[in-house]
Amino acid sequence: MPPVGIDEIRQARERIQGIVRRTPLVPAAILPVPDGNELWLKAENLQRTASFKIRGAYNAVAGLDEAAKASGVITYSSGNHGQAVACAAHLLGVPAVVVMPEDAMAVKVEATRRWRANVVFAGTTSLDRQERALQLVEECYYTVIPPFDDRRIIAGQGTAGLEILEQLPEVEAVLVPVGGGGLVSGIASAVKAVRPDVKVIGVEPEGAADAQESLRQQRLVTWEHVETVADGLRTSRIGELNFATMRELLDAIVTVTEDEILRSVGLLALNEKLVAEPSGAVTTAAILFGGSGLRNSRVVAVISGGNVEPSRLMDCLHLVADPVAANSPAAGAPLT
Amino acid sequence: MPPVGIDEIRQARERIQGIVRRTPLVPAAILPVPDGNELWLKAENLQRTASFKIRGAYNAVAGLDEAAKASGVITYSSGNHGQAVACAAHLLGVPAVVVMPEDAMAVKVEATRRWRANVVFAGTTSLDRQERALQLVEECYYTVIPPFDDRRIIAGQGTAGLEILEQLPEVEAVLVPVGGGGLVSGIASAVKAVRPDVKVIGVEPEGAADAQESLRQQRLVTWEHVETVADGLRTSRIGELNFATMRELLDAIVTVTEDEILRSVGLLALNEKLVAEPSGAVTTAAILFGGSGLRNSRVVAVISGGNVEPSRLMDCLHLVADPVAANSPAAGAPLT
Repeated sequence: MPPVGIDEIRQARERIQGIVRRTPLVPAAILPVPDGNELWLKAENLQRTASFKIRGAYNAVAGLDEAAKASGVITYSSGNHGQAVACAAHLLGVPAVVVMPEDAMAVKVEATRRWRANVVFAGTTSLDRQERALQLVEECYYTVIPPFDDRRIIAGQGTAGLEILEQLPEVEAVLVPVGGGGLVSGIASAVKAVRPDVKVIGVEPEGAADAQESLRQQRLVTWEHVETVADGLRTSRIGELNFATMRELLDAIVTVTEDEILRSVGLLALNEKLVAEPSGAVTTAAILFGGSGLRNSRVVAVISGGNVEPSRLMDCLHLVADPVAANSPAAGAPLT
Repeated sequence: MPPVGIDEIRQARERIQGIVRRTPLVPAAILPVPDGNELWLKAENLQRTASFKIRGAYNAVAGLDEAAKASGVITYSSGNHGQAVACAAHLLGVPAVVVMPEDAMAVKVEATRRWRANVVFAGTTSLDRQERALQLVEECYYTVIPPFDDRRIIAGQGTAGLEILEQLPEVEAVLVPVGGGGLVSGIASAVKAVRPDVKVIGVEPEGAADAQESLRQQRLVTWEHVETVADGLRTSRIGELNFATMRELLDAIVTVTEDEILRSVGLLALNEKLVAEPSGAVTTAAILFGGSGLRNSRVVAVISGGNVEPSRLMDCLHLVADPVAANSPAAGAPLT
């Protein structure tokens, strides 16, 4: 299957216009950025539902035919994608079912139900949820809205790439978090079609670096065990279409440590006044702590979302507010 | 003296263009907003130096004649205005002196010095600083850049009002924090000149409600004792030009409690992913807790800045993350 084309991304853009926000690109003027780089933040934490996921979800649900819309949609993600599908379906008047684990956090159940989605509980593993979802599909003719391995999802996420090119024509590199690979495939497809000279670099947590290994081994690798605070990036394996796209278009995939991720959440809040979730802070971490390998470049870091637990956010603030953290990048560096 | 005219504000806008950011107007889609109101947030916490103060400061410094620029500027605010003057002067190549109290927090001294300003320490009271500043003016021919009672400052702050009208033409009411009255006078001058049908409402902490009392008594009242967590609004008396403008143009001044302010800081971070300082959160507090008196209106709350101490931010998060805060507006209300 060929990568998603620029036409599909432009069509997605028309479909989501007026619903999905054109999020601001915020210059990082207070964070001290090393290696001669300049940093801009694509603030998808200020997106509807506080993550980029609504771009793909809305494009996918809006693109269904009338019969499929009438039957309704289903997904089995309890995180940002689940909320995004619930929101998109609600806005389009489409019934939605979200299958969640029995031990799902009340706040996530609540956030999904607010969009009038029907929450169904099934077991505690992702396999349990997937099985229950497929059973419901057979019984009720729901259409599954997958989280990342899908052309319409990738095309929707790619609209963020078009916005970045318009908002900062002089951009030289774009850093994108890698979970299942939907966002990075979409952005790479958009950016490389229009501006092949702009680097697109994926960022993974060290503890969930299956995509980096897949690219190195040139085959799709599964990590049975992923462990990272970045809950949105805990996928064990990227999608097939995503892998094909990433092989063809990505300049690199780099990794960041757990400590770098947590510090970046704290530093973004204190310096740039933006609340990012750990998954959304990996790109900033790659720039602040040198992992990106970039030098003297105009860099956009995609902040993919802002849905962080209050206690986690407080921990991150502690980490960088503490005077013993004085040798963190927050301290002392001059401003531009 | 007549209020600042729309021409002065438009001139300020040209002067600050390309330097001062056109900050985003973020729809508050996650915060549950009561009384049928819809809420947008004018995110001046994402402004350069993380507060609106750079608008007025840059307009004032850029408007000086060449001789005054060569001699340099001085201010005696240790807060956001001090940083803004230091930043504006640095960008314009003008020498700057900021007089700060001997017990100023290291982080504020640091933030000012990063803009290459010369920090001079004087006593611990605002009177000490003012005296020292005036002495330096006599000795060194510095030009004082006052924090609020000044046409160029007011005109600069008013540019935020022009942006709001462009970003949300259907706006019905604008809520603005009131400290010395520079921001609210500027925004009222801009908004009422272009759209007299749009309400402009000032918001003060209960513990620093000198402006509300001044408007009620129809004379400039001084509060010797002000007490509020909103450190940017701790002025004892609004400016004269500001008072004249506010009497003529404001629809109302309302107050909020300390608890409402602190909760709003926490709710803005957790729900809308924006870090506001307490002074910047008073407007959101007036909407979330009903103090504004508005109903069924399209409301813009100006988030005037984001410079909050880490420990304070953590306290605010605790306040709303705690389950016993479940009857706060964060809980349960449906989304639009």
